[in-house]
Amino acid sequence: MNTLHVIKIGGNIANDEKKLENFLANFVQLDEPKILVHGGGSSASDLCKKLDIPIQMNNGRRITDKPALDVAVMVYAGLINKNIVAKLQGRSCNALGLSGADLNIIPAKKRTGTEINYGFVGDIEAKSINNYFIRRLLDEQIVPVFPAITHDTQGQLLNTNADTIASTLSIALTKHYNVSLIYCFEEQGVLKNIKDPDSWIPQLKKQNYLDLKSEGVIHEGMIPKLDTAFEALKQDVQQVHIKHAENLLNNTGTELSL
Amino acid sequence: MNTLHVIKIGGNIANDEKKLENFLANFVQLDEPKILVHGGGSSASDLCKKLDIPIQMNNGRRITDKPALDVAVMVYAGLINKNIVAKLQGRSCNALGLSGADLNIIPAKKRTGTEINYGFVGDIEAKSINNYFIRRLLDEQIVPVFPAITHDTQGQLLNTNADTIASTLSIALTKHYNVSLIYCFEEQGVLKNIKDPDSWIPQLKKQNYLDLKSEGVIHEGMIPKLDTAFEALKQDVQQVHIKHAENLLNNTGTELSL
Repeated sequence: MNTLHVIKIGGNIANDEKKLENFLANFVQLDEPKILVHGGGSSASDLCKKLDIPIQMNNGRRITDKPALDVAVMVYAGLINKNIVAKLQGRSCNALGLSGADLNIIPAKKRTGTEINYGFVGDIEAKSINNYFIRRLLDEQIVPVFPAITHDTQGQLLNTNADTIASTLSIALTKHYNVSLIYCFEEQGVLKNIKDPDSWIPQLKKQNYLDLKSEGVIHEGMIPKLDTAFEALKQDVQQVHIKHAENLLNNTGTELSL
Repeated sequence: MNTLHVIKIGGNIANDEKKLENFLANFVQLDEPKILVHGGGSSASDLCKKLDIPIQMNNGRRITDKPALDVAVMVYAGLINKNIVAKLQGRSCNALGLSGADLNIIPAKKRTGTEINYGFVGDIEAKSINNYFIRRLLDEQIVPVFPAITHDTQGQLLNTNADTIASTLSIALTKHYNVSLIYCFEEQGVLKNIKDPDSWIPQLKKQNYLDLKSEGVIHEGMIPKLDTAFEALKQDVQQVHIKHAENLLNNTGTELSL
């Protein structure tokens, strides 16, 4: 089977012109087939503030009401996605931006039945991903670029976490490819000490992670990302790395294993 | 050759939930292959106002500076495009939103050498359109949905008039299809008297149009649309109609001929 690279970048890269250019210069050198998934970070919240759209929180969790969803769609699926696609085309990489609604690629279910009503947030499953079109596109040397937007298949767009989209796409494609999933972020890897950027762990086994988590060593903000990453490994994704965006082509960063 | 329908809707439909749903209910009934092109109308200007981005004009022509372009990309390629795609998917129509940058479908040239600097505005030519991917998509029963956004192939997104995109795509595809181009707008057809909505002309020949134009009968705002429409006919588009969006499936409206 061919190796498929699924790369996820966060808003800290997507929203910074210089970091994004540096990242894309490396990304285009990566062997195809490949997929890019991007978050939007704080850019949607920034636009909400400018538009006086209140950012609703409940127990520390963000609520995506209709105005907040519209902003997420504009910023993630519009501004950031189309700029990345244009920049990749400028580097002769045949990119295609795809929200989960386009080609019905990522059907989602609006989150319900939770204590908190999260609003227009979509939960996704690997078995629902529309592999057929993803494979057709990859076979044509097309590079799909996914923002953090899905849909409920009934006409409603939804916001879905970009880390989750990257891991779910990876899991869905393991039947057809050896999938290498790389989460790019602003540190060299998973840190033992959040205050020491050099404390990154080269190899992180699941049990090791669980121990570090229970000891409170792993930074709170990393836990959902790492849980999602280990789930990908459990569901047959071949490799998962967490590394700095500038090291995309280097053999550094944290490699996870079960 | 198969008949290809290229339908253009303006912002008055795209921005009105009810009108859009009515239009899409008809659009999905139209035989495939088909393409939808949408404008955004005043919605980008409305967002500019909310964001205190000054709308720059020069001799009555709008200047698309960087902030105005970002808003156009957010609204046209993001919010409006993805909402239309999601709604079409909700009606079992396999839609795919495509800015001109996606798959390098519509390469454009930034307008230069004019007396006025229009900013990030792209001019397009039928011979540059990437027919290969459009045909591959249509062959897969995919319905492409185009916002008024193109790119310069060097990484820069550009704003291009949606009427022009519709006619240029139509012209580019005449080698492979009998193309029927339909401009949907808020009147029953081209009006002899702008104040009388019933004064629409069922058949409009080019010479007849030129006469009415020189007599000042044709409303100023219709002239660029009609010039673009007659150019499409001249360049082998089989049929061009201008009609009310609600009459998409009816045999009414203005039919143009050379």
